[in-house]
Amino acid sequence: MPYVNIRITREGASAEQKQRLIEGATRLLADVLGKNPATTFVIIDEVETDNWGIAGESVTERRKDGR
Amino acid sequence: MPYVNIRITREGASAEQKQRLIEGATRLLADVLGKNPATTFVIIDEVETDNWGIAGESVTERRKDGR
Amino acid sequence: MPYVNIRITREGASAEQKQRLIEGATRLLADVLGKNPATTFVIIDEVETDNWGIAGESVTERRKDGR
Amino acid sequence: MPYVNIRITREGASAEQKQRLIEGATRLLADVLGKNPATTFVIIDEVETDNWGIAGESVTERRKDGR
Amino acid sequence: MPYVNIRITREGASAEQKQRLIEGATRLLADVLGKNPATTFVIIDEVETDNWGIAGESVTERRKDGR
Amino acid sequence: MPYVNIRITREGASAEQKQRLIEGATRLLADVLGKNPATTFVIIDEVETDNWGIAGESVTERRKDGR
Repeated sequence: MPYVNIRITREGASAEQKQRLIEGATRLLADVLGKNPATTFVIIDEVETDNWGIAGESVTERRKDGR
Repeated sequence: MPYVNIRITREGASAEQKQRLIEGATRLLADVLGKNPATTFVIIDEVETDNWGIAGESVTERRKDGR
Repeated sequence: MPYVNIRITREGASAEQKQRLIEGATRLLADVLGKNPATTFVIIDEVETDNWGIAGESVTERRKDGR
Repeated sequence: MPYVNIRITREGASAEQKQRLIEGATRLLADVLGKNPATTFVIIDEVETDNWGIAGESVTERRKDGR
Repeated sequence: MPYVNIRITREGASAEQKQRLIEGATRLLADVLGKNPATTFVIIDEVETDNWGIAGESVTERRKDGR
Repeated sequence: MPYVNIRITREGASAEQKQRLIEGATRLLADVLGKNPATTFVIIDEVETDNWGIAGESVTERRKDGR
């Protein structure tokens, strides 16, 4: 009964891409640890780029520089 | 000083229902462990149905099938 | 299919008390929002008192002062 | 490679204030533990006041009373 | 720069299995969203079976019944 | 009433260093957003190096190579 939380910046992931993340994470837990997909939760959090920092700088700022 | 995080799908919980979750979780910690309500936090995260998966499938898809 | 994460300091909660937290949180979500207990997860994290701070001070220090 | 998650109520924090939180948390981990800023993540979650409870009451209710 | 948190019950996952979870989750984010593996974090939390509840019951109790 | 969760690898942080993290994070929220220290929580999670991955590899493996 695993719980998987995927946090990404909100930059346009489509419903189809999210579905692929859900399927892929569920399969990974089944393949590696034999976990039952029926009780595997996957929750995707999309975080504003102003609210995500790396290296002391928001992703908004990094994107301005083409990073 | 407990911290309780309740994650649910975003499907129309009202402010009154959220208030009941906050009260109920706070009381539960006081009743079972004697925790002080004054320093009990309850945070409710409402997650889009596209972003919540169970059994390898998003809740959006499950709702289409009436599940 | 809610997910409830309860974080408390590690100060001797018994298996029976944890069971009561699990039951109580599951029932709360069923009562308030009609959520299905079969797919309600409750995860309890017990955190060392050195690792939990409030008011700028660790719980270890607060306990020394009888708080 | 620390991960810092700051959760606050959504009450108008500006992009400049969030940038200061990101810088400050990154510097704190570098100063205290020598952690490399390049692989320090800071994620800020802004939570609706209806969804944050303390002392058994939502922050929305507390703000009405001027607290 | 995704952050992936995998929570499982503590029931003997080996270092090699954890390594496969880390690799698999990192590859999934790269394949589906083009995320850079160099800044993808995967954190695995192993939770005691007393501390994980599903359907209002701890996993410890469920395991006793062979579930 | 902020909640700050700092996740680091378990590699020997002392109680005194954790106290500095608690103080520093509490002060940061007060300085930047005027948050009340009395209701600021800081929780530090120390994660085994086998359980933390970056760039598709566990920190245990990276430390073997002197990284």
